[in-house]
Amino acid sequence: MHEARAHLRARRERFESRLASSLPADTNTPDRLREAMRYSLMAGGKRMRPMLVYASCDALDIDYRKLDAVACAIEIIHTYSLIHDDLPSMDNDELRRGRATCHMAFDVATAILAGDALQALAFELLAADEALRQRPEQQALIIHGIAAACGSSGMAGGQVLDLAAVGTEISRQALTHMHQLKTGALIKISAAAPALFARVEPSLLDRLEVYGDCVGLAFQIYDDILDVTGTAAQTGKSTQKDARQEKPTFPGLLGLEESKAEACRLRDRALAELKGFPGDCGMLACLATVAVDRES
Amino acid sequence: MHEARAHLRARRERFESRLASSLPADTNTPDRLREAMRYSLMAGGKRMRPMLVYASCDALDIDYRKLDAVACAIEIIHTYSLIHDDLPSMDNDELRRGRATCHMAFDVATAILAGDALQALAFELLAADEALRQRPEQQALIIHGIAAACGSSGMAGGQVLDLAAVGTEISRQALTHMHQLKTGALIKISAAAPALFARVEPSLLDRLEVYGDCVGLAFQIYDDILDVTGTAAQTGKSTQKDARQEKPTFPGLLGLEESKAEACRLRDRALAELKGFPGDCGMLACLATVAVDRES
Repeated sequence: MHEARAHLRARRERFESRLASSLPADTNTPDRLREAMRYSLMAGGKRMRPMLVYASCDALDIDYRKLDAVACAIEIIHTYSLIHDDLPSMDNDELRRGRATCHMAFDVATAILAGDALQALAFELLAADEALRQRPEQQALIIHGIAAACGSSGMAGGQVLDLAAVGTEISRQALTHMHQLKTGALIKISAAAPALFARVEPSLLDRLEVYGDCVGLAFQIYDDILDVTGTAAQTGKSTQKDARQEKPTFPGLLGLEESKAEACRLRDRALAELKGFPGDCGMLACLATVAVDRES
Repeated sequence: MHEARAHLRARRERFESRLASSLPADTNTPDRLREAMRYSLMAGGKRMRPMLVYASCDALDIDYRKLDAVACAIEIIHTYSLIHDDLPSMDNDELRRGRATCHMAFDVATAILAGDALQALAFELLAADEALRQRPEQQALIIHGIAAACGSSGMAGGQVLDLAAVGTEISRQALTHMHQLKTGALIKISAAAPALFARVEPSLLDRLEVYGDCVGLAFQIYDDILDVTGTAAQTGKSTQKDARQEKPTFPGLLGLEESKAEACRLRDRALAELKGFPGDCGMLACLATVAVDRES
């Protein structure tokens, strides 16, 4: 595990430079927009989704560098969703990844447009990437999977459910469904995209999808837990905000202890899927473990 | 010309039903989000961009139905941009296509998310479409062209320039550049996409791009003119708002008469490109003419 965490750190460092170079360099992008996009994209963060992409490559024994565009595109989409979620008309958050949110550092209009431009950038990268273009049929499958994961029956739909749930009591099933759309779908395609790229046998794609489902939900439950138990200094974002915003959470529904137990059960179900792969599942195992053993 | 206008009407009617069926039908999309997406997408409008797609197909003598997904995706992206442009933090508009803007009919958060989900839907349609999948390399080129046209060096970038220009005096060159990004890029790819699909000789792609540039700018100049001379009943949107919002416009810069003359010169340049095509350029000619001869 120690070795896997060091491996993860190295991958993350390399990823940061790939991500920075994916930002638009052309002179047609207005400076203020470029700055807002860079400000939010390069603010750090766990980079869990791109690390899942690379970890699945390892497990499938394919060159992880071929999925660089996929890793960047998914992190770019995740970043755009954070910018929009933080807006005054949504969660109205002032702190994200340890610094002012995009609309606080710039303004609301620029933040909306930076999010919009980041979404477009993600698909531009996926369509232009050389490694993907060599497998155009797989490329279309991956673009489709990512677009579906972030649209009305994925991330954007989940945010609508999240906002609608404020101040209400919803069932565990409804809360789970909300998280599956809001964060689960994009996490799942992160784990599954390398299998689409490599055209592996369906059983391995299935395993990666179940793994992604479980890790996604475990991660979200732990996010809810950290919102209760953590501090802003630890997590880099406002805490105790779920209660303040009257959002339904797993700790609110199940209590802290049962929430932790549920997150651990999901981690174990994810780990149980890691068999029959041609490559090294160490990084996938590490990410499932880290999801429920972290301070931020 | 009379015949071409009738042809255009028939194409537009058929397009409305294609567009309606492109909306998400799955049960995972929350009802309120689906309603907001449908509300804005099916509010009518000139459908100029999809008509340009079909008109280029005619000129290139390719079956226009093969570009249905492209036509829908581009109109969906255009609609998402209108929803976001109308937001209180942007142009703060209450009327669009003859009825309440999306954030007035729903709320700001839902309007932002409907826009976000529409952008994702556009790429989902392009990636899933059967006719495009049969030419996966062309499919990637088209997705790339559309993503670039709506991103930071296209539509989103243009909106940043538009907002920055409020209350300032900018040069004709800067105003033209703003429009080229904000509306020109998406109009240009509408005209050019069929040429990418059909892998035509580069000279025809060039002609369609020049045509698209000229029609896009002519259309925008005429929009500025209608904002001065038109009424809300005619145009379906608030008028005299450029002056109220202190936006630089062509009539403000050149005067009404010279603006009209410039729009007509651009139309004539567009028409001059319509030679050497294997198919029928009637609809392209009609659209260039309509751009500067309309009441809405």
